[in-house]
Amino acid sequence: MPIQKPRTLSGFMELLPQKQVLFDAMVEKLRRTYSLYGFSPLDTPVIEASEILLTKSGGETEKQIYRFTKGDSDLSLRFDLTVPLAKYVALHYNDLAFPFRRFQIGKVYRGERAQRGRFREFYQADIDVIGDGALDILNDAEMPAIIYRAFTSLGLERFVIRVNNRKLLNGFYAMLGWDHRAGDIMRVVDKMEKIGPEKVGLMLCDDLGLDEDSVGEIQEFMAIKGSNAQVLGALENYRGRNEVFDQGLDELQAVCRYLVDFGVPETHFAIDLSIARGLDYYTGTVYETQLLDYPEIGSPCSGGRYDNLAAYYTEKQLPGVGISIGLTRLFYVLDEQGLLNPDALTAPAEVLVLPMTEDLAPAVALATRLREAGIAAQLYHEPKKFKQKLSYADKLGVPFVALLGEDELAAGKVALKDMTAGTQQLLTPEEAVVHINVTLAARRGARPIREK
Amino acid sequence: MPIQKPRTLSGFMELLPQKQVLFDAMVEKLRRTYSLYGFSPLDTPVIEASEILLTKSGGETEKQIYRFTKGDSDLSLRFDLTVPLAKYVALHYNDLAFPFRRFQIGKVYRGERAQRGRFREFYQADIDVIGDGALDILNDAEMPAIIYRAFTSLGLERFVIRVNNRKLLNGFYAMLGWDHRAGDIMRVVDKMEKIGPEKVGLMLCDDLGLDEDSVGEIQEFMAIKGSNAQVLGALENYRGRNEVFDQGLDELQAVCRYLVDFGVPETHFAIDLSIARGLDYYTGTVYETQLLDYPEIGSPCSGGRYDNLAAYYTEKQLPGVGISIGLTRLFYVLDEQGLLNPDALTAPAEVLVLPMTEDLAPAVALATRLREAGIAAQLYHEPKKFKQKLSYADKLGVPFVALLGEDELAAGKVALKDMTAGTQQLLTPEEAVVHINVTLAARRGARPIREK
Repeated sequence: MPIQKPRTLSGFMELLPQKQVLFDAMVEKLRRTYSLYGFSPLDTPVIEASEILLTKSGGETEKQIYRFTKGDSDLSLRFDLTVPLAKYVALHYNDLAFPFRRFQIGKVYRGERAQRGRFREFYQADIDVIGDGALDILNDAEMPAIIYRAFTSLGLERFVIRVNNRKLLNGFYAMLGWDHRAGDIMRVVDKMEKIGPEKVGLMLCDDLGLDEDSVGEIQEFMAIKGSNAQVLGALENYRGRNEVFDQGLDELQAVCRYLVDFGVPETHFAIDLSIARGLDYYTGTVYETQLLDYPEIGSPCSGGRYDNLAAYYTEKQLPGVGISIGLTRLFYVLDEQGLLNPDALTAPAEVLVLPMTEDLAPAVALATRLREAGIAAQLYHEPKKFKQKLSYADKLGVPFVALLGEDELAAGKVALKDMTAGTQQLLTPEEAVVHINVTLAARRGARPIREK
Repeated sequence: MPIQKPRTLSGFMELLPQKQVLFDAMVEKLRRTYSLYGFSPLDTPVIEASEILLTKSGGETEKQIYRFTKGDSDLSLRFDLTVPLAKYVALHYNDLAFPFRRFQIGKVYRGERAQRGRFREFYQADIDVIGDGALDILNDAEMPAIIYRAFTSLGLERFVIRVNNRKLLNGFYAMLGWDHRAGDIMRVVDKMEKIGPEKVGLMLCDDLGLDEDSVGEIQEFMAIKGSNAQVLGALENYRGRNEVFDQGLDELQAVCRYLVDFGVPETHFAIDLSIARGLDYYTGTVYETQLLDYPEIGSPCSGGRYDNLAAYYTEKQLPGVGISIGLTRLFYVLDEQGLLNPDALTAPAEVLVLPMTEDLAPAVALATRLREAGIAAQLYHEPKKFKQKLSYADKLGVPFVALLGEDELAAGKVALKDMTAGTQQLLTPEEAVVHINVTLAARRGARPIREK
């Protein structure tokens, strides 16, 4: 029979076991954090009817979609978790209690041009809070807390959550008489960090036709920096000139007010008037994040407030606020940077049980006992030399090997070899359980990421 | 703008939040069990190149595949987790340590005719142990233990794991001189339970042309029943007549020998000579399971030993043994039967924190404190009447509501309402943490299924 050379499609992440353990640990940490904040898990189909999935998108998105027919059905793979959420909320409206808080961690598909670090199948880890008719600003204020807690639980330390408000920006441009070009201006201003304020000024004049006074005002506005209190103070000087601006400022103040109570240190949170988020559907608070030592990653977690989630599926007004973590790309970059925690346990088992006698019953009983005590144990009984067995344990990174020979059995004990320390002890099964649990306690809870 | 009526494709499971929590709890219990037995998590792409995925299949399977082109690529959605495993092991052979033990819980796709309880997108929860060249029979013996532990962790109680061995059957038919039709005979004998031994006998005569003596021998063989010891004893009478049979009997004995040490009660394990599993690639031990009160479900967990996992991708001989749980269908049927555990916590939060004062800081601080203590808390601050807030908590099934009004704040306390008991207590935050943890301890660990 001819051999079919195995391959995995380019743009599709497929990890070796030890890295998969760390990826899964990240997912688990996010699940845990999202759950602590009162979000329900959600799982929607990967495949949806094309007419459902593609109502909203056009142009670029449409080209990237995996779309195909099966029988009479025109089908597409989801390209994000937001459109399926909109469908879900509209479809199950009568069965849900609002505000509806859900998290979803799942794969999405975009047939982008394949390039290093870009994926066609990737995980998004989203949370959203959806209101029925209205949604309190306290939900916007809580999002930075969730990002802070989520990132910290992963092991990230040096990051900052940047917040702005679209109403503040729209109101500001309205003050200048340029609200009809607010979107275009924001797109130019968004380049501030990359190209600097001078080039931004030139583009605003030349490309968009703004007068010099307006450009000066914009540059002055965007130059507002400092602590959150200082920025809010400076923004107060603009108050009273535009209603939308004032509303945006109130919202931004509300988001900042309870930071300390929410447990977010000021070091990890900054108002940043330059961010606007490209997506047109954000209407209020917007969030971005930055890993301070790896700005090239871009924003691994972004989101914001939107006025109406599901306008394509229902006439109900469903405002919401949410954030999304691009998990596959984040994992890829952290791995590239060598930031996966080397102390984390990544072996399939915590103990490799090696029977050394003909009768396997004692080894089987020991493995069963370890598992009952919550210790992951693998029985290994292949006809290999002792040295090969130990090198198997070594290759897997198994922290303990339990040897059961005639002598150990006669003494009612087990020879427990600590593969990290290189030591070996003769212990009763009970003692072994305690010793393993104590030794591994810290590594079991280890965060998947460790910054240098 | 016209409204697009939202819908989810038929054959695709989409759960409401409370059921999703229970489904996820099942997944989590399986992950935990598989991990305790020393299996690594694995995640492979949902999409593979068609030439990779379809090497093996033909006919029925091919028709069910979701296959499409994107650009120049001929792509298919995976229809099980075994073919991707074969590809993975062949592709990453040099990076893996053997035996390679992996679990994978993921969605697979089959465009079957839509019918009640049949799904086109469904979860499989698989484990496999893959050897390099050889694999010890102890791995076969461990599988029933894993099934037993996995099912028990879900909350299933009245089930039996049925085991047989293909070598035993092949050897037996060889004794009769019918080994060239063994596959056909097994397919007929497999209907024993449905149509009875008489009709099976007729089919063997009429359809397959077996002589009466052979049919009599088969009926006698298949009538071997009793305890495992009794069945093994009866099988001993056939020993010495065929080498393959003897080998199968040795294997079956080995699988049964350590049951008690593996922690499997004999009530939950039975040798059943009638099962063969349809798939042609099983070559030794085969497993099925049956929920005693719901035989119509069929076998929710099946599997077996195969000689060569990845013959299509590599010349290496990679024998393995594995089992697969059809999780989506199992969940669907258990739900239909009303077996989802009503005591399990399914609310998004364990505590709903209701601020009753203008300043939200104390409520925010309380929610933060609860979360730090590992309690899932949701802040609720929408402009609703008090009664509506409680009915929101009720609809979600939130077990506790924490009220923070002026009086409570002045006393440094919180009014904690137990929504199940209908009682209310004035407690300090520390006391509230303890009370909530104590009250919820049992429900937090609850199994997702409860048999009646």
